[in-house]
Amino acid sequence: MLRTHTCGELTISDLGKEVTLTGWVQKSRDLGGMTFVDMRDRYGITQLTFNSDDNAALRAQARELGREFVIKVSGKVIERSSKNLKMSTGEIEIKVSSLEVLNAAKLPPFLIEDETDGGEDLRMKYRYLDLRRNPVRNNLVLRHKMAQEVRKYLDGMDFIEVETPVLIKSTPEGARDFVVPSRMNPGEFYALPQSPQTFKQLLMVSGFDRYFQIVKCFRDEDLRADRQPEFTQIDCEMAFIEQEDILNVFEGLIRIMFKNVKDIDLADVPRMTYADAMRLYGSDKPDTRFEMQFVEMNELVKEKGFPVFDNAELVVGIKAKNCAVYTRKQLDELTDFIKRPQIGATGLIYLRHNSDGTLKSSVDKFYNEDELKKWSELYHSEPGDLILVMAGPTEKVRKQLSELRLEMGNRLGLRDKNVFSPLWVLDFPLLEWDEENERYHAMHHPFTSPKPDDIALLDTNPGEVRANAYDMVINGTEIGGGSIRIHDRTLQALMFKHLGFSNEEAQKQFGFLMDAFEYGAPPHGGIAFGFDRLVSIFAGLDSIRDVIAFPKNNSGRDVMIDSPSTISEVQLKELKIKTDL
Amino acid sequence: MLRTHTCGELTISDLGKEVTLTGWVQKSRDLGGMTFVDMRDRYGITQLTFNSDDNAALRAQARELGREFVIKVSGKVIERSSKNLKMSTGEIEIKVSSLEVLNAAKLPPFLIEDETDGGEDLRMKYRYLDLRRNPVRNNLVLRHKMAQEVRKYLDGMDFIEVETPVLIKSTPEGARDFVVPSRMNPGEFYALPQSPQTFKQLLMVSGFDRYFQIVKCFRDEDLRADRQPEFTQIDCEMAFIEQEDILNVFEGLIRIMFKNVKDIDLADVPRMTYADAMRLYGSDKPDTRFEMQFVEMNELVKEKGFPVFDNAELVVGIKAKNCAVYTRKQLDELTDFIKRPQIGATGLIYLRHNSDGTLKSSVDKFYNEDELKKWSELYHSEPGDLILVMAGPTEKVRKQLSELRLEMGNRLGLRDKNVFSPLWVLDFPLLEWDEENERYHAMHHPFTSPKPDDIALLDTNPGEVRANAYDMVINGTEIGGGSIRIHDRTLQALMFKHLGFSNEEAQKQFGFLMDAFEYGAPPHGGIAFGFDRLVSIFAGLDSIRDVIAFPKNNSGRDVMIDSPSTISEVQLKELKIKTDL
Repeated sequence: MLRTHTCGELTISDLGKEVTLTGWVQKSRDLGGMTFVDMRDRYGITQLTFNSDDNAALRAQARELGREFVIKVSGKVIERSSKNLKMSTGEIEIKVSSLEVLNAAKLPPFLIEDETDGGEDLRMKYRYLDLRRNPVRNNLVLRHKMAQEVRKYLDGMDFIEVETPVLIKSTPEGARDFVVPSRMNPGEFYALPQSPQTFKQLLMVSGFDRYFQIVKCFRDEDLRADRQPEFTQIDCEMAFIEQEDILNVFEGLIRIMFKNVKDIDLADVPRMTYADAMRLYGSDKPDTRFEMQFVEMNELVKEKGFPVFDNAELVVGIKAKNCAVYTRKQLDELTDFIKRPQIGATGLIYLRHNSDGTLKSSVDKFYNEDELKKWSELYHSEPGDLILVMAGPTEKVRKQLSELRLEMGNRLGLRDKNVFSPLWVLDFPLLEWDEENERYHAMHHPFTSPKPDDIALLDTNPGEVRANAYDMVINGTEIGGGSIRIHDRTLQALMFKHLGFSNEEAQKQFGFLMDAFEYGAPPHGGIAFGFDRLVSIFAGLDSIRDVIAFPKNNSGRDVMIDSPSTISEVQLKELKIKTDL
Repeated sequence: MLRTHTCGELTISDLGKEVTLTGWVQKSRDLGGMTFVDMRDRYGITQLTFNSDDNAALRAQARELGREFVIKVSGKVIERSSKNLKMSTGEIEIKVSSLEVLNAAKLPPFLIEDETDGGEDLRMKYRYLDLRRNPVRNNLVLRHKMAQEVRKYLDGMDFIEVETPVLIKSTPEGARDFVVPSRMNPGEFYALPQSPQTFKQLLMVSGFDRYFQIVKCFRDEDLRADRQPEFTQIDCEMAFIEQEDILNVFEGLIRIMFKNVKDIDLADVPRMTYADAMRLYGSDKPDTRFEMQFVEMNELVKEKGFPVFDNAELVVGIKAKNCAVYTRKQLDELTDFIKRPQIGATGLIYLRHNSDGTLKSSVDKFYNEDELKKWSELYHSEPGDLILVMAGPTEKVRKQLSELRLEMGNRLGLRDKNVFSPLWVLDFPLLEWDEENERYHAMHHPFTSPKPDDIALLDTNPGEVRANAYDMVINGTEIGGGSIRIHDRTLQALMFKHLGFSNEEAQKQFGFLMDAFEYGAPPHGGIAFGFDRLVSIFAGLDSIRDVIAFPKNNSGRDVMIDSPSTISEVQLKELKIKTDL
C-alpha cells in the first residue's frame, strides 16, 4: 500500500505516530509561515501542516499544490491547536516531513464540494469528478450497503441468486425492447430483458423454490424526467406459497433494510385494496405519510340546482387542516394548479370553516348554511379548516384530486423525506382497457393469475376481474410489484386469448413457458423491486439519477463517454445490417 | 406456505409429527397392499407410504401418480422399517392421510436422475427439466454460495460494489462488440461491455478506492467449445496500491473461498514469471498439479550429427516417471498425438531408462551410451523412467511439448479434479506481435502499464517490454488476470501511439479517460476473475456450461426459448435499420 492510514481514521489516540497518507488536495491556505492543506480521500479529510521554520523548501513545495492534486505525505500525528470537533479527524493534524505529488491536476470545471457551482450538464460530462463529491459518493455507498442487506436477508431465507441471460428474445407484449443483431445468425436479433420474468418462472418449474437476483433490466422507452433505459431490479420468486407468504417475506426484507441501513423500526406495513386506494386517494400509489383522505359527497350535493355537481359522476373533496386562512390569491393558485394541462381540471370549489365557526363556500348561491353544515359534518371539519371539492367523471376527478392532495401535502409540509410510510396495495385489476388499441392488456403482465372467484367474469366483464397482484408503495412511489402467477397451461392459454394473442402467436413467443407448465409446474409467485427507486427513497432524493454511477440523460445518451455513437462499416457488414436514415 | 416442512428436513427426531409436504414425484413402487412414493424438492427426498388397509381410496389415488407430478400431502412422521442411512431423511417416512395433485405432468423427455438418458440437445431444449437434476442444481447452488463469499470478503475489505453501465460505446480494440441500435439516436449504436475496464478506472479517478462488481460481460466471438457470448466476471480495482497489494488481497479472496466453500486450506500461492512459465512448462497457464518440468538440452545434443537437433532452435524434453515400460504402440500413440493438426509437431524422440539400468533411445545412431548417460543425469532419471524429447523453433516446440506434458499428466492420473494448484504468473509481456495485421497489440489491454525500467525498450524492442501484469492460474486454467494501470495521460498517449492509434482515434475512443487522467488520477490497478470458469473448477467440471442456468450453444442460440429470432418490420423501422442478407 502507498499509505499506512486513510484520511478518515487518525484521531487523538494516534498522537505521535509516523504515518503515510495519500489523497486529493481539497484546499490549502497560508497563515504566516505556515501552509495548511486539507487532504481528502473516500474516508475523510485530514489536515496537513507545513512550517517554513521547520523546512522552508517543503513548505514552498506545499504552496505549489493545486486543488485536486494527488499527493502522498509522510509525517507525524500531532494535536491541533484549534480543533474541529465536527469531524472525526478534527483534533489532529499531520506535521509533514515529506511530500510527493503522485499526479498533478488541472483545475476542475466545477467545485468538488458538497454544494457545487457545476450545472447538471457539466457534472454529467465530468461525472468522474462529480462522483468525488460527498453527497454523490454517499449515495453509491448507500446503494452498495442496501444491496448487501438484500443479499444477506434473502440468502438467510434460503433464496438462491441465479443469473438469468441478458441476450434473450424479443416479445412485442409490454414496452419496447432493445435488440441486438446476431452476427452468427444473420437477420436475427436478441433482445435485452425488460425483466427476467419468464426465466424466474422456469426456475420455479425447475424446483429452485426461492430465487432472487439483483439484475439490470432494459426498456427502450421515451425517457421521462426520471426514467433510465437501463435500470436495476431486485427480482424474486417463490414456489409452494400463497400471496400472504410473499407479503410477509418481502415486508420482512423492507423492514430489515430500514433497520440495518437507516436504524428505523418500521411498524407493520398496512394493506389496502386497489379499489380503496382509488376511492380514498385517487391513486394506486397513495402517499400515506399524511391522511387527507378523499370524501365522496354525491348524496349531499346533488339536485340542489348546481349544474356542475348535478352533471358530475363524482363529487369528491379533501380537507386541509388550518387552511381556512388561505387568501383569494392562494385559492386562485390552487385553481391554476389543477387547471394546468398536465392535470386538466375545470374548477375547484371550496368551503372555509372559519375560525369563528362560520362556513363560507364558493357555491353559497346553491347551498344554504344548513346544507354547508352537513358538508362540514361529513368532513369532520373544525374551525380553521378548508374543504376543497372537485367534480367530474369518477376516474378523471380522482386523478385530479390526487394531484391536488399531493400539492396540499407539499404546501403543508406533510411530505417529510425523513418519514417513511410503506403500504401494500392489493387486488389490482387483471386487465386494463387500452383506449388507443381498443383492447384489454395485462395490467401487470400476461402471467398474472386472476382471482379464482373472478375467472367467470373474464367473458362477461373483463375489466372487473381482480388479480392476485400487489404493489408495495412508499411515500407515494411504487417501489415493488408482483403477483401470484398462472401455473396451468389451460389458464395461461385462456389469458393469452383474452389479451388478443392468436394460438400461433402465443406458441411462438411463449411456447416454451406453456410447455414447461405441462411438466409439473408448482404454484408460484413473486415480486420485483425497483432498486434505483428504492435507493433514491432511502437517500431522500427525488431522482434516481444520483443513485446511479454513470446515468444517461433524457435522450438516452451518456455524455461522458459520448455514447451511443456511429460504428464502422466493417461492423455493420459483419452484422449484415444497414442503417436506414 | 403450502407446506410445513421441506422434503429434506424430517428426521427420526420428528417422529409422530403431523406434517404437510409439497414436491415432485421422483418414483413410486407397489409392494403388496402398499404404495411407496419418493417425493422430491430442492432440499431432499422423503418417502411417502399409502396402505390399502388404512385407506384403499387414497392408496388407489397414489397409484395414479405419474413421475414429476406436483403433489401436496399431509400425514404423520413414522419410523421406517427398512432404513436408508445414506440420506438424512432415510430413517423416517410419511404415513399419508391426504393427497392433493397440485399439477399433473407429462412424462419428461429424459430421466430426472443424477445419471440421465437425455442427450445434450434434448437437455438444453428442456433446460428447466435438466435443472431439476441434483448435479445441475448443485452447480448453481455452489455458484450462489461462491458469489456470496466473494461479496462478504470484499465488503469486509471496504470494497464497494458499483454497477457500471451495460449500454456503452463500441471500441474496435480487442474482441468484437455486440451492438444495440439506438432508436432515439438513429444511426447510432450502443455496445455491450466486454468488461467494465474504463468505468472502473474512472471510479478510481473518482476516489472510490476499492471497487468490485460481479458483472455480466459480452463478446461476439466465434464460440469455441467452452465460450459463451455472455459471461460473468468478478471485476475489481484498487487505488493507492502496488502490484504486491493486489496479489495479497486476491490471493486472500481465493483462499477464503476454498476454505469456506470447500473446506480446503490452500498453501501460499506460488509465483512464477511469464518467462519461467514458458521455459519450464511451455505455457503461460501451467498445470502445476504435477511437476514434469521442461528440461532444455541444446548444449548436450547439438553437433553430434543428428540433423533434427542440429537444425532446431530448441531441443527440450520431459521425464515421465515409470513409463519406460511403454510399448512401441503406446509410444506411437504419443507420436500420433503430437502430430495431430491441432498440435502439428513432426516427431518425438524418446530415451528409455530401463529398469535394469540400461538406456535405450530412438536416436541411438547419433548418441552413444556415454552421451545418453548425460541425458539421464540432466533429467535426473531413474530406472523405469521415460524421457520424451522434441525439437523445433522455441515458441512452437514449447507449445507442442506443453500439450504432450498435459497428455502425459492425464495418462498418469496426475490431474486430479479434487486437487487444486493455484499459481500467480507475473511479468507478462506488454505487447504481442500480431502476425495477421503485422503490428503489435496489447497482450492484456491498452491501459496496462509497462514496467518503468522497460519503457525505454518501447522504441527499440517493443516485444521485450514487460508489463505490470499478472494472471492467476488454477490447474492449468487462467481464472483471473489484471495489471497495474497507466494513470498518466502522456504515458497513455504513448501506449496508444505504439498500438497504432492516431491521435484522433485515441481521442475519439478514449478521450474521456485521458481527460480524466488530467484531473488528478491516483495510481491504481486491478484484476478480473472469470466467475463461470472459477465455479466450474470448484465444481470439478470441464465445461462452464453447466454452471450457467440458461447457457447458449456453440452458435450462440438459446434453443429453449429459440433465440435469437426475427423481429417485426415495425421494430426495424422504429430503429431505422434494415437487414442486409
